[in-house]
Amino acid sequence: MAEKSEKTKARLPRGFVDRSAEDIRAVEKMTAKIREVYELCGFEPVEQPLIEYTDALGKFLPDQDRPNEGVFSFQDDDDQWLSLRYDLTAPTARFVAENYERLPKPYRSYRSGWVFRNEKPGPGRFRQFMQFDADTIGTPGVAADAEMAMMMADVMEALGIKRGDYVIRVNNRKVLDGVLEAIGLGGDENAGRRLTVLRAIDKLDKFGPEGVRLLLGAGRWDGGKEGEGDFTKGAGLDTAGIAKVLAYVETGEIENNEGVEELGQIRALCAAAGYDDGRVKIDPSVVRGLEYYTGPVYEAELLAEIPNEEGKIVRFGSVGGGGRYDGLVSRFRGEPVPATGFSIGVSRLTAALKALGKLDTSDVVAPVVVLVMDKDTESLGRYQKMVSSLRKAGIRAEMYLGGAGMKAQIKYADRRGSPAVVIQGGNERAEGVVQIKDLVEGARQAAAIADHAEYKEARPGQVTVPEADLVAEVRKILDAQKAERDRG
Amino acid sequence: MAEKSEKTKARLPRGFVDRSAEDIRAVEKMTAKIREVYELCGFEPVEQPLIEYTDALGKFLPDQDRPNEGVFSFQDDDDQWLSLRYDLTAPTARFVAENYERLPKPYRSYRSGWVFRNEKPGPGRFRQFMQFDADTIGTPGVAADAEMAMMMADVMEALGIKRGDYVIRVNNRKVLDGVLEAIGLGGDENAGRRLTVLRAIDKLDKFGPEGVRLLLGAGRWDGGKEGEGDFTKGAGLDTAGIAKVLAYVETGEIENNEGVEELGQIRALCAAAGYDDGRVKIDPSVVRGLEYYTGPVYEAELLAEIPNEEGKIVRFGSVGGGGRYDGLVSRFRGEPVPATGFSIGVSRLTAALKALGKLDTSDVVAPVVVLVMDKDTESLGRYQKMVSSLRKAGIRAEMYLGGAGMKAQIKYADRRGSPAVVIQGGNERAEGVVQIKDLVEGARQAAAIADHAEYKEARPGQVTVPEADLVAEVRKILDAQKAERDRG
Repeated sequence: MAEKSEKTKARLPRGFVDRSAEDIRAVEKMTAKIREVYELCGFEPVEQPLIEYTDALGKFLPDQDRPNEGVFSFQDDDDQWLSLRYDLTAPTARFVAENYERLPKPYRSYRSGWVFRNEKPGPGRFRQFMQFDADTIGTPGVAADAEMAMMMADVMEALGIKRGDYVIRVNNRKVLDGVLEAIGLGGDENAGRRLTVLRAIDKLDKFGPEGVRLLLGAGRWDGGKEGEGDFTKGAGLDTAGIAKVLAYVETGEIENNEGVEELGQIRALCAAAGYDDGRVKIDPSVVRGLEYYTGPVYEAELLAEIPNEEGKIVRFGSVGGGGRYDGLVSRFRGEPVPATGFSIGVSRLTAALKALGKLDTSDVVAPVVVLVMDKDTESLGRYQKMVSSLRKAGIRAEMYLGGAGMKAQIKYADRRGSPAVVIQGGNERAEGVVQIKDLVEGARQAAAIADHAEYKEARPGQVTVPEADLVAEVRKILDAQKAERDRG
Repeated sequence: MAEKSEKTKARLPRGFVDRSAEDIRAVEKMTAKIREVYELCGFEPVEQPLIEYTDALGKFLPDQDRPNEGVFSFQDDDDQWLSLRYDLTAPTARFVAENYERLPKPYRSYRSGWVFRNEKPGPGRFRQFMQFDADTIGTPGVAADAEMAMMMADVMEALGIKRGDYVIRVNNRKVLDGVLEAIGLGGDENAGRRLTVLRAIDKLDKFGPEGVRLLLGAGRWDGGKEGEGDFTKGAGLDTAGIAKVLAYVETGEIENNEGVEELGQIRALCAAAGYDDGRVKIDPSVVRGLEYYTGPVYEAELLAEIPNEEGKIVRFGSVGGGGRYDGLVSRFRGEPVPATGFSIGVSRLTAALKALGKLDTSDVVAPVVVLVMDKDTESLGRYQKMVSSLRKAGIRAEMYLGGAGMKAQIKYADRRGSPAVVIQGGNERAEGVVQIKDLVEGARQAAAIADHAEYKEARPGQVTVPEADLVAEVRKILDAQKAERDRG
């Protein structure tokens, strides 16, 4: 055992969190529903490892202008650089490029998993988080993009989010490119400024038109006023440029181009399938922050108003999105491999569903605890057998394994949220009976009975039954508790 | 698109693999069964992130004598060292230490997840693999160790491994420590040599008593003969020491000590619960390679004989194990926090179950493909609606999204393993019908019909039905295919 002085400190690096039982169960429930939609739509699971060669991942993060920032990287023993993946799209592109010949095309796949960002953590901003993606690779047709938008809508509904409480918004990078060209930001030399403009537009939801205006111009103070918070440098557009971009974003005003045509087709395809009832909408303000998108982009937005971290009621906003990334697979293959897909932010969506009351995990009942009244091996064996008989009947159960007395054992069961405890001391053993304490009923009765003497008299929520009836009696208690939960 | 010359190479670092749909589904099926056992036994899920402070993980890997080897490490922006976890036990210890006050004690938890080893990969040896652990923390009683051993047996049976095809072998590090002390290897200054002896014993299964004799003495050549393969340096024991260790390992010969007593209790507890029927056995050759074990150790071994990677029939061996690690949580808290738990090697166990035919995933049927005969938006909408109606009936379905003609579309469906395709060209549309091709029946009939003309005539496995009957007819075909699979 460590001396006090040489103890290691038990702590987590910033931006990482431990996951509780409730969170794990909620995510499990949610991802199962998402998986069902993806499977139904004919997508197959495929997963890549969490580590890839750095050059295979490419630099497509929002902070691409600071090379090697944003990702966790380390050198292999042959000096090659490895990185933890920052999304699931780049590894998928690598996988498809590597196995292109043997895959059916279009290749429809899905995957969930952890991704990592080596950046400054903040409230709701983690350095490890889970995404759940679906991709169709190997077809340029906008029917694939339309399908993605509609499938995102299907996912929202499978999760119990009511129609009208969400919208899938669709836009096209080519349309935006047309606007950017019109204000003189065409060409490779303006790639950086284009990205700054796109990210400014992406903030419309967050900062409103006035905030976007500042970000398109000189820049914006995080606090909203000069000198307050950090300063974000803007795109440096002139007044005319800012006006053109804002006019497009707010009204969709744009000359006809290839992107507009594609959006028309997506609109028509979604309408033909009945998704024009508010589920899927064309929206010029959608840009998506990643650089690698080349065509249609889409975003799932929760319209429901939910208390945020500070308790303020706000529209929840984006829970996932994606788009066409025709360059990602191509850069490995030197031939066109068009692709489109989206990513659901699992942690964010879980938070939203919890707030909406759609992720109830109260159906998982804590284990029944068989108390240890005698500690000799024979008695322990007897308790273990009671536990076994309960488990065989499908009831979660355990024998208390600590060294404490009866009071502490009941406290343990309370802390676990156990529905009941089973007690057999020497007297009960001699009579061939067991006591079963209903902890839910017991707690209620105890609260109702003010007088201590009366409490002892009433023996709240406790029955003594023949040992042979143990399972049946516990089942009865669990059923009664469930009926009560269902009622209220 | 990249020029041929500047293409990035699509490749994976050594020791990492992509996971196929079959593998993902098999693991999903297997872990669901393991999870059910853990839940039934009253364990709760809890998960730690994949990254921890390096000092929090400690150096407990088999190659601990080479510091910083074995783990993937990198520096945070505040210069502190971070590492990818190499097992699930060390992060669990950190978590429990950090949250000790608020946790019920004993604390019973389970978790599955990826772990990483920065070491030389080899056949069946990966740098990223999955473990599935259960731990009881906060009790010194051997009843907790006995429960772990019995729970491992329950897991084996829940996975369909027959009694007699596996055994949970139990030993105690304290017993081994007695032997080591008797041959003069007590004390801190001999920690390294003790570990070498333990690892030599651990190789009994693999190399037999003669191999272990070499590893206890001067050393052993990997090829089995001098000069063949790599040389593993031995523990350097003298003849008397080697004889004492081998006598213990082969016959269990040892003076009574605390470890022997604990093993007696575990034996009695398992007998009382009926697990002495060959499911749990005391076995002096079990050591487990990790340094942090301090008491009982246990191992799940598959006795079934299964073809190995070279097709040779061998006993499959260990698929998981664990033991008591009383020092791991204590080193954070400076007070005793006894703990015991085990880890199942998910990938290894999956391989074993596949070989035993226990992980059939053929119940997942590939999607029905609705072919695209006309590409105008109206037709696409019509096909999309057919797909929707199939999905609504719970049938996996998709519209073909590539640009190819009918022949290539059917080839695509074949490659996907689709049960059927749906066809509606202009003529069928005019008549209000669809053609449904049963691809399983079609392939069989096609194989049976030698003559090409006759093939065309017979229109194998194909029906034409009113559009309104689409779902019912597809269902009929799927049911017939399922009945056939079940028969054979």
